[in-house]
Amino acid sequence: MAEDREVTIYDIAKYLNISAATVSRGLKNNPMISKQTRKKITDAATMLGYQSNTFASSLRSRQTLTLGVLVPRLNSHFMSSVLAGMENAANLHGYNLIIAQSLEDVDKEKRNVLTMYNKRVDGLLISLSANAVDIQHLEPFFKKQIPVVFFDRVHPHADSTSVGIDNYEAAYKITTHLISQGCKRIMHLGGNLLRNVYTDRFKGYKKALKDHRLLFVESLHLVSNLSEQAGTEAARYILDLPAAERPDAVFSANDTAAVYCMLALKAAGLRIPEDIAFAGFNNDPISKVIEPNLTTMNYSGEAIGNTAATYLINHLKGSTDLYATNAITLRADLVIRASSLKKDAAG
Amino acid sequence: MAEDREVTIYDIAKYLNISAATVSRGLKNNPMISKQTRKKITDAATMLGYQSNTFASSLRSRQTLTLGVLVPRLNSHFMSSVLAGMENAANLHGYNLIIAQSLEDVDKEKRNVLTMYNKRVDGLLISLSANAVDIQHLEPFFKKQIPVVFFDRVHPHADSTSVGIDNYEAAYKITTHLISQGCKRIMHLGGNLLRNVYTDRFKGYKKALKDHRLLFVESLHLVSNLSEQAGTEAARYILDLPAAERPDAVFSANDTAAVYCMLALKAAGLRIPEDIAFAGFNNDPISKVIEPNLTTMNYSGEAIGNTAATYLINHLKGSTDLYATNAITLRADLVIRASSLKKDAAG
Repeated sequence: MAEDREVTIYDIAKYLNISAATVSRGLKNNPMISKQTRKKITDAATMLGYQSNTFASSLRSRQTLTLGVLVPRLNSHFMSSVLAGMENAANLHGYNLIIAQSLEDVDKEKRNVLTMYNKRVDGLLISLSANAVDIQHLEPFFKKQIPVVFFDRVHPHADSTSVGIDNYEAAYKITTHLISQGCKRIMHLGGNLLRNVYTDRFKGYKKALKDHRLLFVESLHLVSNLSEQAGTEAARYILDLPAAERPDAVFSANDTAAVYCMLALKAAGLRIPEDIAFAGFNNDPISKVIEPNLTTMNYSGEAIGNTAATYLINHLKGSTDLYATNAITLRADLVIRASSLKKDAAG
Repeated sequence: MAEDREVTIYDIAKYLNISAATVSRGLKNNPMISKQTRKKITDAATMLGYQSNTFASSLRSRQTLTLGVLVPRLNSHFMSSVLAGMENAANLHGYNLIIAQSLEDVDKEKRNVLTMYNKRVDGLLISLSANAVDIQHLEPFFKKQIPVVFFDRVHPHADSTSVGIDNYEAAYKITTHLISQGCKRIMHLGGNLLRNVYTDRFKGYKKALKDHRLLFVESLHLVSNLSEQAGTEAARYILDLPAAERPDAVFSANDTAAVYCMLALKAAGLRIPEDIAFAGFNNDPISKVIEPNLTTMNYSGEAIGNTAATYLINHLKGSTDLYATNAITLRADLVIRASSLKKDAAG
């Protein structure tokens, strides 16, 4: 069928009545060809449906100009910002992103890693699933020296770089802020301790308590998946405690659990921040809508995604050496809002 | 350098001391080879870092097993749910997703379309940017019969299918609900009328007014990009109106604008829903956090993504014919919450 035949540079040449060599040069944006002719050639190429052979040529050059992106879940505010940042960087440098999610399942993550490997991505950007205990499944990449960049949920490795924030310091800052507001029994809603982001936040919280001579109380440390439901359950847990044992503040490792804990406590008649102060993490849109507005840690998913992708691409282009850099730490800022301003509320 | 040499089936055969033909069959999951041996072969392949030649073989078969996904913006709650649904479907059927965003810029969208075309994606999933006036830029796909599925922001075309909800009916339902609550001056915060989702919502709103003998008032129809800022500005617009001309309800085409309009009106002392009722669209997380909770239209981005991708893949596999289906309409449900329950609030 004539329809099925691929349009070639010869078709474009015939259509424009110029030589195939000129068409070829024009499509490669060769300055030997006048700007006007180049435009004529690319217009004709589009019109005729010419499909450039980047696919075959990438097979020859062993470059696919694609980056693999593996994430735990695509549908979170943070991850969608990260992807937006990565896409900006990739698009700018002529790369494309192939994405897959593990749904927090390490077995699916393993299969996704092999798919990316067989798709011959030029490099890999990965944030680990909650239950990944090691990074053995990334060995094919390391063995073949295909560069890997970890972001957010990272894992130390000699041949890769990590991009994220200083979670330890951020949690230390938040906890210290709550202490400065007069809080003495600060509860921590934490995530899976296999992941650095949650262990670091937990450690920063404990260190701040210690530095201010407050005891760490085991019963005030709840570990969960930090979902809406987990936040509601934390509220029930708090309400079930004897009044004397209740926390006077909650530092949650994400905004979702903080907000749903607040909603349930408010419904039970507790005043925020007078009875119990609150701080979250991420600066999600809900943190600005809950009343009182939620104190939280702001950092840019877009910046993390952009930095991780740009770094990987620069390594692929030979302009920086990924293996020389261990970690890139981005800025995180404490955003103080009414949910933690106990002193103002009392005054 | 020895490191750089590709691992071949001959290396696996030598390692396991079996024939290369057996390895080849084992890797293709040929039932002639015992299950135990197949496992041995795939384990060895992973261990040695064998990279299957799907890339070269896809060049031969003219299939890349990749789907292109073009969206206006990656960083919204709705779009991240859509992507999650698409990834589920693609992963299940052995396809991968290549993604790009237009940032609502039709010129970037045009470049992205050409990139996907040159990447030789097997099919395209697209939601149009705000300022795309036609779909001329998709001609290369149509001409070459590479299937295209529109989702959410769709455009009629004989050779493609659209997946979304019935926006006209949804808006009609919301507006009728507000009318049933006694509202007579209903304002509409709408989006860019180039896009079907916003024209259909506007039309549904007007038809509901007409069917209930309420006049459509031009000054109560604001068009914007429906951002946080647009919501805040709408509140200022309402507050600047003479008391007699103020709306007694607002139907916003998304939740973001509704919520930020509510926050600003509440700050100015208006009571919701007593002074002014509210309804949004999308059922974003913020709609459950704003007080009073926001009445909205719930529909699953995940279902839209999953349906669009599954439909495209089934067409590619020959089990359904895309060209025979004009549109797939998914369910959308009115979620009534306190922001619009004027009668309850008054009683």
